Amino acid sequence: MHLTPEIPPARDKLLFTPGPLTTSQTVKQAMLRDAGSWHSDFNALVAGVRSRLLSLAGLTRADGWEAILMQGSGTFGVESVFQTCVPPNGRVVVLANGAYGERMAQMLRHAKIDHRVLRTAEDVPADAAALEICLAEDPAVTHVAVVHCETTTGLLNPIDSIGRVAKQYHKTYVVDAMSSFAGIPIDIAACGIDFLVSSSNKCLEGVPGISFVLCRRDALLSSEGWARSLSLDLLGQFKGFEKDGKFRYTPPTHVILALDQALREVELEGRIPARQERYRRNHQALLAGMQKLGFRSYLNPALQSPIITAFLYPAAGRFDFDRFYTELSRRGFIIYPGKLTQVDTFRIANIGRLFPADMEQLLSAIASVLTQMSNE
Amino acid sequence: MHLTPEIPPARDKLLFTPGPLTTSQTVKQAMLRDAGSWHSDFNALVAGVRSRLLSLAGLTRADGWEAILMQGSGTFGVESVFQTCVPPNGRVVVLANGAYGERMAQMLRHAKIDHRVLRTAEDVPADAAALEICLAEDPAVTHVAVVHCETTTGLLNPIDSIGRVAKQYHKTYVVDAMSSFAGIPIDIAACGIDFLVSSSNKCLEGVPGISFVLCRRDALLSSEGWARSLSLDLLGQFKGFEKDGKFRYTPPTHVILALDQALREVELEGRIPARQERYRRNHQALLAGMQKLGFRSYLNPALQSPIITAFLYPAAGRFDFDRFYTELSRRGFIIYPGKLTQVDTFRIANIGRLFPADMEQLLSAIASVLTQMSNE
Repeated sequence: MHLTPEIPPARDKLLFTPGPLTTSQTVKQAMLRDAGSWHSDFNALVAGVRSRLLSLAGLTRADGWEAILMQGSGTFGVESVFQTCVPPNGRVVVLANGAYGERMAQMLRHAKIDHRVLRTAEDVPADAAALEICLAEDPAVTHVAVVHCETTTGLLNPIDSIGRVAKQYHKTYVVDAMSSFAGIPIDIAACGIDFLVSSSNKCLEGVPGISFVLCRRDALLSSEGWARSLSLDLLGQFKGFEKDGKFRYTPPTHVILALDQALREVELEGRIPARQERYRRNHQALLAGMQKLGFRSYLNPALQSPIITAFLYPAAGRFDFDRFYTELSRRGFIIYPGKLTQVDTFRIANIGRLFPADMEQLLSAIASVLTQMSNE
Repeated sequence: MHLTPEIPPARDKLLFTPGPLTTSQTVKQAMLRDAGSWHSDFNALVAGVRSRLLSLAGLTRADGWEAILMQGSGTFGVESVFQTCVPPNGRVVVLANGAYGERMAQMLRHAKIDHRVLRTAEDVPADAAALEICLAEDPAVTHVAVVHCETTTGLLNPIDSIGRVAKQYHKTYVVDAMSSFAGIPIDIAACGIDFLVSSSNKCLEGVPGISFVLCRRDALLSSEGWARSLSLDLLGQFKGFEKDGKFRYTPPTHVILALDQALREVELEGRIPARQERYRRNHQALLAGMQKLGFRSYLNPALQSPIITAFLYPAAGRFDFDRFYTELSRRGFIIYPGKLTQVDTFRIANIGRLFPADMEQLLSAIASVLTQMSNE
């Protein structure tokens, strides 16, 4: 077949968003292949991806941990845990201070799973003391769930102190580490986490289309017969891998080839500490530059992750965010709108194949847009 | 970052499987970009994909049809219809004659949706007369569901006569057209179909990771409040697209870029009639060649789709399928194991970026493997 020649597309804009993000050319090139999803070569690659995810997290199968891949975005991964691992009479406490905590509650409502939401304000961390009171009062609770890095604001929730309370009361502990895993070291065992969920297109710098769950094998195996969805049956997915190494249903083969390459690249970079250090330098460059341009970040710096930052609209005059966004996009930089309910913010992420020099380029572009907008 | 140079991988083996399949290089190259999933450029591309899917199916929004993309494999798409569009007191009749019909029943069991399975043998088409008796007896039925091309055998079910009965009794009609859509023309409106589900990695020749549902808007809108899963909430997904053109949750952007290119290629090839004709010629070459080599296909030819064919193990002697498969793989050809419950078969699909010349290459390789195996 002869394709009509077309003008090649412009160079991609850099994504300062929390995923999908700018990935390396080599990660994308890993998708230039067609793998048979039932073939032993692909099964071996999937087994490798699963064990390297565990290794990156500092976990081993010998110590009772498993890594399970699940088709779809991170939301599919988180929902697969609830749909599969909460018993019919279970009750989940969700600690929420942003859109992603609220999304967990929304999943539980859809699945008609009993739950209670402990809310804090969007700029206040989840509260282990409030959780303790709740668990002391309510013995029917079976699960505690929280988002680690709440992407709404960039706030980091204290998953260690929450985990201590959850374990003290013998509850199953579920952590959505979507935008933090591989960008911030997490001692999963020490935090008492039973199920940690993340996705290939965040700090692993892969492409979107697959999520994964790192979990205690025992906690998963005890979920027999509870799954409310076939596609999202996490235990079924695990048993499929155990039986013959295959996905139960067609996996996104190209996305997984990219994840395999992305894992190789985080390993070569120096694993999570090195990646964290790059993101920290990106974040410092961003904060310093934005401050110089007169922007203030929304959160108290002590609560702020080095992943994504919410900035307040400038105090003086009306700020035309759409114009700001469009002018930055025209210059090749995509930022992210705000998601806060009470305050006007926009967000800038600093994860992906980005380096301090890219942050400086973005800051120059922001300065140029501000000058242009103030001269109109 | 400097990647360790590696020996480049061997040329990909050709996939004679029902998906993932061999795709064009241009479809894969479309994935060499990072798109912002909230950006207007990507939203415009998604809107284009949705309207071109409708157009390819001969449907229009003006006539009340919608195309909705859903993350995950085709199974996720089929389950999204059941999880969303069957009311709490609904009852589904599934016509099953293979693994994919049984999978629908499995989905309904997981979701605790009342259902009844009308089974025929794996070589017998779904029976519209049996459905009519069932619907006459059981007014509580709300939905009828069937697989068009049952990939277990390659059998084509009579979706038109089943649809006539479903409509005569005013039931909602769900068709899994996973491996037939875009390879075989389907008059969706004339068949009385309310929800048709397929996937990017079948006859559209895209890559796996996204499914889609073509449906009557009214049937979808009447599902308000029924969704049992947030991720698989088809109505929620539709409302997200309507509100701001965005996916509710991170879409597999690269997979969608590949689907956009795959749609361009099926349009350039001459749309569904031309693609059907190529697959028909592939299939003829396959059948003629296999017959010459002494193989018999499992199905009566009148029931056989030109998509995938199940072949019986040779009658004489013990047939070592694993050896056969491995030797073909070594020569660069991946075929598919059987999935029948009663009879030993293997399967060969002829969809994807494959041409009659590729079928001839496969047949030569099969002849060579048979000679080698008979000489041992």
